[in-house]
Amino acid sequence: MRAVDIIEKKKQGYTLTKEEIEFFINGYMEGFIEDYQMSAWLMAVCFQGLSFDETAYLTECFINSGDKLDFSDFNVHIADKHSTGGVGDKVTLVLIPLLASLGVACAKLSGRGLGMTGGTIDKLESIKGFNCALSEDDFKNQIRKINAAISSQTPNLVPADGKIYALRDVTATVDNMSLICASVVSKKIASGADIIVLDVKYGSGAFIKTKEEARILADLMIETGARLNKKIDAVISAMEQPLGNCVGNSLEVMEAIEFLKGKMAPDLYEITVEIAARTLMLANLVTDYDMAKNYIDDAIMSGRALNKLSEIIEAQGGDKNVINDYSLFEIGHNTYEIKAEMGGYISRLNALDIAHSCKLLGAGRDKKSDKIDFGAGCVLNKKEGDLVKHNETLATLYFNNVSKERLDEAINYAKSAYSITLDRVEKHSVVADI
Amino acid sequence: MRAVDIIEKKKQGYTLTKEEIEFFINGYMEGFIEDYQMSAWLMAVCFQGLSFDETAYLTECFINSGDKLDFSDFNVHIADKHSTGGVGDKVTLVLIPLLASLGVACAKLSGRGLGMTGGTIDKLESIKGFNCALSEDDFKNQIRKINAAISSQTPNLVPADGKIYALRDVTATVDNMSLICASVVSKKIASGADIIVLDVKYGSGAFIKTKEEARILADLMIETGARLNKKIDAVISAMEQPLGNCVGNSLEVMEAIEFLKGKMAPDLYEITVEIAARTLMLANLVTDYDMAKNYIDDAIMSGRALNKLSEIIEAQGGDKNVINDYSLFEIGHNTYEIKAEMGGYISRLNALDIAHSCKLLGAGRDKKSDKIDFGAGCVLNKKEGDLVKHNETLATLYFNNVSKERLDEAINYAKSAYSITLDRVEKHSVVADI
Repeated sequence: MRAVDIIEKKKQGYTLTKEEIEFFINGYMEGFIEDYQMSAWLMAVCFQGLSFDETAYLTECFINSGDKLDFSDFNVHIADKHSTGGVGDKVTLVLIPLLASLGVACAKLSGRGLGMTGGTIDKLESIKGFNCALSEDDFKNQIRKINAAISSQTPNLVPADGKIYALRDVTATVDNMSLICASVVSKKIASGADIIVLDVKYGSGAFIKTKEEARILADLMIETGARLNKKIDAVISAMEQPLGNCVGNSLEVMEAIEFLKGKMAPDLYEITVEIAARTLMLANLVTDYDMAKNYIDDAIMSGRALNKLSEIIEAQGGDKNVINDYSLFEIGHNTYEIKAEMGGYISRLNALDIAHSCKLLGAGRDKKSDKIDFGAGCVLNKKEGDLVKHNETLATLYFNNVSKERLDEAINYAKSAYSITLDRVEKHSVVADI
Repeated sequence: MRAVDIIEKKKQGYTLTKEEIEFFINGYMEGFIEDYQMSAWLMAVCFQGLSFDETAYLTECFINSGDKLDFSDFNVHIADKHSTGGVGDKVTLVLIPLLASLGVACAKLSGRGLGMTGGTIDKLESIKGFNCALSEDDFKNQIRKINAAISSQTPNLVPADGKIYALRDVTATVDNMSLICASVVSKKIASGADIIVLDVKYGSGAFIKTKEEARILADLMIETGARLNKKIDAVISAMEQPLGNCVGNSLEVMEAIEFLKGKMAPDLYEITVEIAARTLMLANLVTDYDMAKNYIDDAIMSGRALNKLSEIIEAQGGDKNVINDYSLFEIGHNTYEIKAEMGGYISRLNALDIAHSCKLLGAGRDKKSDKIDFGAGCVLNKKEGDLVKHNETLATLYFNNVSKERLDEAINYAKSAYSITLDRVEKHSVVADI
């Protein structure tokens, strides 16, 4: 077999065999297939696509390229959740304690954010002392003890995806459904979970722009899971406006705590219930959706979910007092209020603009080496469909040391995120499809 | 500007600006755009194509990437010819002396063959002492003195094409019309010629398979020349069967000498006249095609063209006695005759099979470092449309030290090249279009 022939075959639109995909991916990891051959192949894939079979073979190669976490000695279902990424997405922060409090073992491996406003790991690290770098043993022991652990990914999990993703990022080959699917599903399966619920987001604040594409990706991931003997379910959700009311690391953790105290933004509640209910059903802990919803509401209202968050924070070395004392969080010392220039209804709140604004304030990073300001971010006082009076506050920016120029740019982004109209605007459901 | 954005833009099917193409090619040559980005871009080009403008910009970037030969002090037209490559193609060997004897200054830079059966330089080096590695000064001086010189390309001519071609070869991105055009036309223009006639070949023995594709490539090269202020004309010719009666280095030079002595294979004569006539017309040395043809026939019949070949051989250090003493050539000591298994008409003579056969006998190379056996090759006693008796010789293989296994394979290729039918077969014209 020769790399160039496999590239040519995909370029011509033919379906590759399992052996050819293994040869190509393994050859790349072993170093005898070069970056420039991989990138040519990736580009051919962007044009010709991969079949369900090819996607499953690719995913399997990714999984086999590195270590796998093994929970076979646990004798319980291990759940995991993944979001394709959005602005203000703190679902993991509420979902994991919630599910763990309901008896679901949650093994959550998360990443840091690049480009937007911090990932789950960044958010958790805004809690003083919180340690996300768990060893495999510590990770497992904690799950055994309190049903949940959240850790940053170990470098040796799915190295093929790591190497190939770095290449895709600089060769304009990110946006192919099969490549995205293999990247996401391989990581979830290698993490050891056997129940996986995916949150596939679309809209201005997501990298998938339309509901149709989100549907295709969701179907592909479910199908790939089935071929690899894993139960995968997916929720398709809109990411036109940020999720919940806060964007930025400390602010999002505070919102998550408030949520578990029963003060829930409607969109965040809707998506969390949807994902949690699907997980409970896949784990056979409930017989139907209504039963799941009752369990979930009870876990929140009884304080058990909040208590579980406290346990997780404590187990991972964090200061659990943050739950009742928000002054323990770093919050930007300076604020700027974005005011409504006219009265009316919010017809649009653009997630990407808010993300840009927060990133400029220091909440995100461009390069891996950039340091995040946990206290930077934005509180959204008004969201789509809300009525606002002239000069009323739409959003509040939080920041520390930001240059005048950068601040002005951040303000402009936040302002342009909002559109106001005199006509009444309906609020949209965030969960679009399941 | 960022490389990834330019790749993305082409991937989306947009037209790149001159500045973007310059940035991309120059960035690649300077090293801040990587091989893997170039190969992703090349693959995107294979799918989305390049416009006439983009192709001309690319060609110009290629030309500007290295040295250019300058004949501006010559005050005459400088002609060059290029063939896209075929089996038994010895047109250069007869055309250059022919044109030079008619007063056209010919500056011919040629390459070595890779994959098939030797390039023009390899063929000339089968003449003892013939030196193709001329310095720029020697090259020019010889043209001044005897109107013609044939040299191997200097490494610093169009280095961008060299670097990119090496990448295309291993990333399945060779077969795009614009990339082929930029590669060919840039080299011809950088070589200093202002009159360029291209021989675009199609068929089983060429890398372009159909006449339609050959037409597209020819139009594109003529259009690119026009945009860069060069007179380019093109001949489209069939390469289903080998050109002329000999394939292999020494054998082809002998056939070229025979041609200039007036013993011309009809197909080789047809294509040579076509290219020579077009060159004479572009150089304004004749007023029409018939006048050109008369000049050409006279140059051959009078012996002036043969005499010019002798001058070229002598000027470049070769032994001009080869012209009258073929025993000075290395010719394979062993022969094998391929016999007709039935009587009838030759309905097909597959050029690629003959090429494979000759390569196995040692007439070509796989790697740059392979040594060619000048004496290896094949004489085609019968060609398409010829009548053959049962057991009559179709072709004769010439070879030296070849393993039994390799020889058997070469024989099989040569045998399978021929198809015989009982029905009369018409001979086709080799020049398909102009």
